[in-house]
Amino acid sequence: MTDELKHFMNIEIPKVEKHMYDLVEGIDAPQSLKEPMIYSLKAGGKRVRPLFVLAVLDHFHVQSEAGYTAASAVEMIHTYSLIHDDLPSMDNDDFRRGKPTNHKVFGEAHATLAGDALNTLPFGILARLKDVPAETKIELIQLLSETAGAEGMVGGQVLDMEGEQRLLNLEELVRVHENKTGAILRFSIEAGAILAGATKEQREILVEYAYHIGLAFQIKDDILDIEGTTEELGKTAGKDEASDKSTYPALLTLEGAKQKLQDHATKAHECLMKIPSSSKYLSDLTDYIVHRNK
Amino acid sequence: MTDELKHFMNIEIPKVEKHMYDLVEGIDAPQSLKEPMIYSLKAGGKRVRPLFVLAVLDHFHVQSEAGYTAASAVEMIHTYSLIHDDLPSMDNDDFRRGKPTNHKVFGEAHATLAGDALNTLPFGILARLKDVPAETKIELIQLLSETAGAEGMVGGQVLDMEGEQRLLNLEELVRVHENKTGAILRFSIEAGAILAGATKEQREILVEYAYHIGLAFQIKDDILDIEGTTEELGKTAGKDEASDKSTYPALLTLEGAKQKLQDHATKAHECLMKIPSSSKYLSDLTDYIVHRNK
Repeated sequence: MTDELKHFMNIEIPKVEKHMYDLVEGIDAPQSLKEPMIYSLKAGGKRVRPLFVLAVLDHFHVQSEAGYTAASAVEMIHTYSLIHDDLPSMDNDDFRRGKPTNHKVFGEAHATLAGDALNTLPFGILARLKDVPAETKIELIQLLSETAGAEGMVGGQVLDMEGEQRLLNLEELVRVHENKTGAILRFSIEAGAILAGATKEQREILVEYAYHIGLAFQIKDDILDIEGTTEELGKTAGKDEASDKSTYPALLTLEGAKQKLQDHATKAHECLMKIPSSSKYLSDLTDYIVHRNK
Repeated sequence: MTDELKHFMNIEIPKVEKHMYDLVEGIDAPQSLKEPMIYSLKAGGKRVRPLFVLAVLDHFHVQSEAGYTAASAVEMIHTYSLIHDDLPSMDNDDFRRGKPTNHKVFGEAHATLAGDALNTLPFGILARLKDVPAETKIELIQLLSETAGAEGMVGGQVLDMEGEQRLLNLEELVRVHENKTGAILRFSIEAGAILAGATKEQREILVEYAYHIGLAFQIKDDILDIEGTTEELGKTAGKDEASDKSTYPALLTLEGAKQKLQDHATKAHECLMKIPSSSKYLSDLTDYIVHRNK
């Protein structure tokens, strides 16, 4: 990771987190619901999705308070999906990022409802954005519904689950990850572009960039599941192979998956070169996705 | 039920249902996700929430295609909440409206994800509304997020669940139902008012109406659990008493609950009289809520 990116993260991640926790603390809801919501939001993670919103804004040299709200919205959606994904009827995970999963602490019923509430809230906070034209808010809300719901992330999770029953081919695997991981990253990147007032052409380039970075992210995850340690990852390593899951290394060999990762990284960088900027965070984030060890 | 209301229902319910099924059929998502979504949407029910949207529009003599979309949105939210509520970790119900519950047919994982998708989709369909100003769409989306999420329905479900562990007092019970049942009915009624272009004063009256009709609805449900038969209700009668649940009859006696129901019905009618109209559907729906036998 470059020093510049480290600095960017050190400044921006705490700002997003404070913004996000304040949004949840501020709602008039039972404490016994807010507590599991905040527990999982605070469980951390790399905050990649919020960072992409802010890196795109920086790429266009636009400062926008609304960026922190869009960043919070996408992190809430990501967090709700993890809470539901960890449930016994889904992946049945007891630990996430080294901490007990939501339902292990609060019980399944509260975990289900905390997830539901974190699915609904982002639409409200986008609707309440100040100093943003109503048309822009509608664009963000429509994009979030499309990328987070049946047409995006939730659809991808269904396909992913079904991919555990049988070995997918490469085309099917790409479709799973385009939706499961890629769609929500596309929200981050397009939301940044919308708030930055990017042109239609620039947005199309960034959607292509999001496609490559989304697949690169997932391929790297698959590789880390083989090469990483449980300690580094904060989750059980080697789980994919043990469960015969359809992954890039399973379909392409480990070397083939690494080549594919490099291909997508190169294409992602090529997209960025079409929108020249003195801001290097998007380019640095791309490298970080490819070279991270957790 | 009056003949006029019966006629209104016979005309409008199939129109809302077709609109809603078309919206789900039209999305680009895996068939194995759309199937459980549509299964529960088709499982029927009284369609009270969509009817309130349309009855309010008729009260103002406004015809609006957008009414069917708002009606579909609220029914999707209601349906997702039933799917998650029926899960083994929540109420653990095998039957709903006389049919096997979603997870009994599709498994818990698919039921959870179908519920999630039905929570996200309504925001997208409201954002995509045609011929409605962006400001109006934002108002509807903000209202839906508030009434469906932690501040409304989901918050109410958490309180309701906790009310099964200990006997609530009347004030706490009102708070549960104001949120659990009332909030989403408030969406129906306010959404109708927003789309009808009601004045601020009219909207305030209708919010008060929604408060009374929401509580009347819940008290009637509690009474039916005692006086109704399993066959009529399509769900197990007597379940509340068997589980020592906090209900109006448990707190006020059956006669006291019936008096309370009548009080709220009277107040609901008083609200309506402040917004005179030749349309009688809202008034008829009020009586229907109070006198229904299922």
